[in-house]
Amino acid sequence: MRPRMQAIYHVRCDARSIEARARAIAVEQSVEMPLSAIDDAFVRSEIVGRVEAIAETESGRFEVRISLAAETAGCDAGQLINMLYGNTSLHEDVVLFDVMLPHELTRAFGGPRHGLHELRRRAGACARALTCSPLKPQGLPAGALARLARELVEAGVDYVKDDHALADQAYSPFAARLEAVTAALGGAAGPAGRAARYVPSLSGDLDEMRRQIAVATAAGVDTVMVAPMITGFSNFHRLVREHPAIAFVAHPTMAGAARIAPPLLLGKLFRLLGADAVVFPNHGGRFGYSPDICRALARAALADRDALRPCVPVPAGGMTGDRVREMLDFYGTEVMLLIGGALLEAREGLREATAAFVAAVHGYAHR
Amino acid sequence: MRPRMQAIYHVRCDARSIEARARAIAVEQSVEMPLSAIDDAFVRSEIVGRVEAIAETESGRFEVRISLAAETAGCDAGQLINMLYGNTSLHEDVVLFDVMLPHELTRAFGGPRHGLHELRRRAGACARALTCSPLKPQGLPAGALARLARELVEAGVDYVKDDHALADQAYSPFAARLEAVTAALGGAAGPAGRAARYVPSLSGDLDEMRRQIAVATAAGVDTVMVAPMITGFSNFHRLVREHPAIAFVAHPTMAGAARIAPPLLLGKLFRLLGADAVVFPNHGGRFGYSPDICRALARAALADRDALRPCVPVPAGGMTGDRVREMLDFYGTEVMLLIGGALLEAREGLREATAAFVAAVHGYAHR
Repeated sequence: MRPRMQAIYHVRCDARSIEARARAIAVEQSVEMPLSAIDDAFVRSEIVGRVEAIAETESGRFEVRISLAAETAGCDAGQLINMLYGNTSLHEDVVLFDVMLPHELTRAFGGPRHGLHELRRRAGACARALTCSPLKPQGLPAGALARLARELVEAGVDYVKDDHALADQAYSPFAARLEAVTAALGGAAGPAGRAARYVPSLSGDLDEMRRQIAVATAAGVDTVMVAPMITGFSNFHRLVREHPAIAFVAHPTMAGAARIAPPLLLGKLFRLLGADAVVFPNHGGRFGYSPDICRALARAALADRDALRPCVPVPAGGMTGDRVREMLDFYGTEVMLLIGGALLEAREGLREATAAFVAAVHGYAHR
Repeated sequence: MRPRMQAIYHVRCDARSIEARARAIAVEQSVEMPLSAIDDAFVRSEIVGRVEAIAETESGRFEVRISLAAETAGCDAGQLINMLYGNTSLHEDVVLFDVMLPHELTRAFGGPRHGLHELRRRAGACARALTCSPLKPQGLPAGALARLARELVEAGVDYVKDDHALADQAYSPFAARLEAVTAALGGAAGPAGRAARYVPSLSGDLDEMRRQIAVATAAGVDTVMVAPMITGFSNFHRLVREHPAIAFVAHPTMAGAARIAPPLLLGKLFRLLGADAVVFPNHGGRFGYSPDICRALARAALADRDALRPCVPVPAGGMTGDRVREMLDFYGTEVMLLIGGALLEAREGLREATAAFVAAVHGYAHR
């Protein structure tokens, strides 16, 4: 038996058509042509997608499980998502809900190099939740962002990350920002004063991202942020493989909503490719993910699976200091809390607000 | 006045909330933080997104126009889509409907290097529509795909492209396929017998795609296919800039449905980055695009705009030979017709069916 991937699709469809619809998806995601025109025995028996199960979950909604030959993905991450959902993403009534990969494929992709334990170790945190704050807004000069970074680190935040809108713009070049922020952090007082606390956001093509990592590494940075839906899966995975000492935080920008189930895309697939931490929109913030989706996403990122290291869930998107306790009750302490705008709104009180956020997280761990 | 991009979003929302909702999108896609916490005059006046117009298109549906500083995109294609739609893609009730870029940004991206006229010239076609057929299914050995390519070219098809599922799998390595197909076409009889008729599909990370282009170029190939939503915008654009002699066909896989309007994503943005031709699902085939969407998409690809070369629309996805006349009536002859499965279904009659498809296209031009 050659190894197969199992893909689960949620399909809106009338009951009379679902069997044909399921077969059509299996064909679309494998050979994309009429089966009657295929003679080759290997293609017919191995390559053509198979409908393994169909279950009605509610009236007019079906869960369809289709198996696909693992070989069709090769060992390329872009081809993996192409085979799992490529053309079917063009049907607006089909959601890619979950995927089970054969162990050999999971091992080949490899997952996080560092994950939860190393991100905690680097922050000097043993069992507590981690804290993170962003540098924003874009448009500020590098010096202003560096001062902000220093305030946040002096107030005790574990990781200070670039807002995902900070790229390599004329008014805020990557290299100048990196130099200013790492210089400011290198001299920061307090136990957290290390350049390595800074998580710059990478942008551009693969070569540009490599150059940015080189600049960051030279300045003592050991963690970076990428947006896999913008860099492309293959390039994200390449960066992970090429830079074993670097930890990667994945950002959900351009990840869409609901067409690939967020627990699968952000929790499972980003982790598979090597995300050590994954930012996602927490429930009750600026985005519409439900508590159930958030819980499933965090579990997918952390679950003991195929010997992959755990990826740190980073719920975010309009979070506030007064939600720390509730979020830690919800997620437990295997989490990184990311609060941005709510701290910046304190303005002159930024340092106090940040220190209160940090204290709430540290205090929770000691209850 | 610094140049600004205009982004048009379609938003489902109740009328009482639309103004706040529009402002929230403008903030999300620019500074992503409370405006009350921003002092910097440059950021407030230039970087913060501006709601320029709100119009109700039907009850509970609004068209919102937001302007964003062009500088926020820098000149990176990934950052462009990040600024236009990144986090807002996570809201399922917002569609990115259209985008107007300042001329300098359009010029910087540059659009197709070759486009309609060069793809026609290379095929020896003057004013008629172009024809294309795919090599499939994946899983066939390279020799079998090469024989298929030769049959299609001998029957007169202008371009023979890889199915987008053909990557660099163990059972069908890219290099072996390229060698077999170009060898078969180099010796093909008929006016169309040129290796350059073969359009291989690229996959993998940026370096891998560069290697594939080098192999293809060495074998006389001058056109390749890429999937911009999988390679990532920045990497696609990089390939275009690095390979001025190569024409690029863009494939819609992973382009989702309806969350970025297809005329914008496939017609306008893929062209902006340099697609010389763009494959998209025609109405009445296996996918749900309406005739209006298809017409708008083709117009966006071809329209005289900012001195960009026209990108060839390639309607596809379950097309048949008996639709040639209707499709040419609908699209005109500035189009490439792509028929695959329907020809392969003819089996032993493949060559005749293909020749009939080609004759129908050529004949139409002469009416």
